Formats: sequence, C-alpha cells, structure tokens
Amino acid sequence: MSACVFCQIVSGETPGHLVLETDDLVAFLDTRPVFKGHVLLVPREHVVTLPDLPADLGAPFIEAAQRIATAVVEALGAQGSFVAINNTVSQSVPHLHLHVVPRTKGDGLRGFFWPRTKYADGEAAAYAEKLREALAP
Amino acid sequence: MSACVFCQIVSGETPGHLVLETDDLVAFLDTRPVFKGHVLLVPREHVVTLPDLPADLGAPFIEAAQRIATAVVEALGAQGSFVAINNTVSQSVPHLHLHVVPRTKGDGLRGFFWPRTKYADGEAAAYAEKLREALAP
Repeated sequence: MSACVFCQIVSGETPGHLVLETDDLVAFLDTRPVFKGHVLLVPREHVVTLPDLPADLGAPFIEAAQRIATAVVEALGAQGSFVAINNTVSQSVPHLHLHVVPRTKGDGLRGFFWPRTKYADGEAAAYAEKLREALAP
Repeated sequence: MSACVFCQIVSGETPGHLVLETDDLVAFLDTRPVFKGHVLLVPREHVVTLPDLPADLGAPFIEAAQRIATAVVEALGAQGSFVAINNTVSQSVPHLHLHVVPRTKGDGLRGFFWPRTKYADGEAAAYAEKLREALAP
C-alpha cells in the first residue's frame, strides 16, 4: 500500500467520495471541507507541487479545474468558487492537490483569506526585478 | 481607456510592475500584497473567471503559474507558494487573475486560510452525487 493517502484514493485502496475521474486525474471530496462540497483535484501520478506537474498534464489539469469550478456553482447553488494550491508550505499532503471550494457572498471567508501589507518606496520595483530575472527565458 | 484596471495594465495604459509577458498572458506584482513578491497572472484577453478561460489558453496559463511558483522560491527565498483564484465571490477585479503568494513556514497564514467544517453522516455522499451529476460528460 502506498504511503501517500492521495495515491491510496487514486488506486482505490482507500475509499473517497470521487466526483471526477479521467485518464490522468481524480477529484474527490475533502473530508474536512472549508465549505461542504469542497473538492480536491489530484493527478493520478504522484507529484508533489504545481511546478512538478508534467507539461502534458497542464491542459487536462486546468480543464478539470474549470469543470469543477463550474460544477460547484451549478450543482450546489454556490455563487462562485475559491481555487487554490498550497505548495510545500501549508501543504498537508505532499501530493499535488488543487482545492475547489464553493463560495457564497457573506460566507465569512473574505477577511480570513486576504490580510494585506504594503511596499515601501522603491521596494516593489526591486521585487519585480528579482522575479523578472528568475523568469527570464 | 478600458474600464478594467487589469486590461489597462495589459495594454500599458496603467503602469504595473510586470514580471512576465507572453503572447497570451501578463504577470505583475499585486500592489497590496499578502506577502511581498505576490504576483498576479492574467490573460491578455478580458475573461472574468477561470471557467471562462478559452481552452487554448489552459496549457500556457498553468505553465506560467508553474514558472512563477518556481520563481518566488528561487528569487525571493520563499519555501513554497500559495496559488489561488477567487471566482466571482471575493474577486476584487472581474478579470481572471491567479495569485501566486510566496510562503514561508511560520509566516502566520495557515490558521487564516483553512477553517474547516465536518459532514454529517451520509452528507458527503449526497454532495458527491450532486457534483458527479454536474460533472458527467
């Protein structure tokens, strides 16, 4: 048996409330949802973080995320969705998983999610320069 | 001038700290970051939510998100990243934008992000069934 609980759900060794299965991906309910109907989308292949997702799975992964984001609105009466991936930090299971959480106005999450800070003068330009260098082809 | 601030940044009408530009996508610093180096990735084309992203932009969109998630670790000394999209609810600008927030252990965000609830007996199965129906081909 795999040591990874998401690999176990993918293989069927551990039961899950599956909502979508494709050749490359499986989606199932999070057992401890932020809101009910909270879905996790994982690649069948064990990869750890988003940057580890093989290039040929990029398009199917985002397409499935789009379908699930549509489904939580259509099927559950949500008004929108929160789509998120924790890479390494706050990542409870080290197998890439994309959360799709149904959202409704006034559900109380806004203030939790987005505490904000400010850049000092010139600081934003310095951060952007570092990122541009790292992103240069 | 476009009424959409992200369209203005894409067109150059409004300045932004750009970090990545491709044929289809632009990424720039969020002016009010959760943590410094917080990047927003947007399609040049004005679409509102993730489900609205045209199919041919899926692969480039996820590939750019992967590159930015790698860059915040490499360039800024982060240990991981938080990648997220708000669709409709909590979406401050109605132009699809994917957040990439640099994360470091102990940065204090864990408790904010993931308040959890529980399913009553049988309730998870009912939610999964509704979603499976909405996701059926």
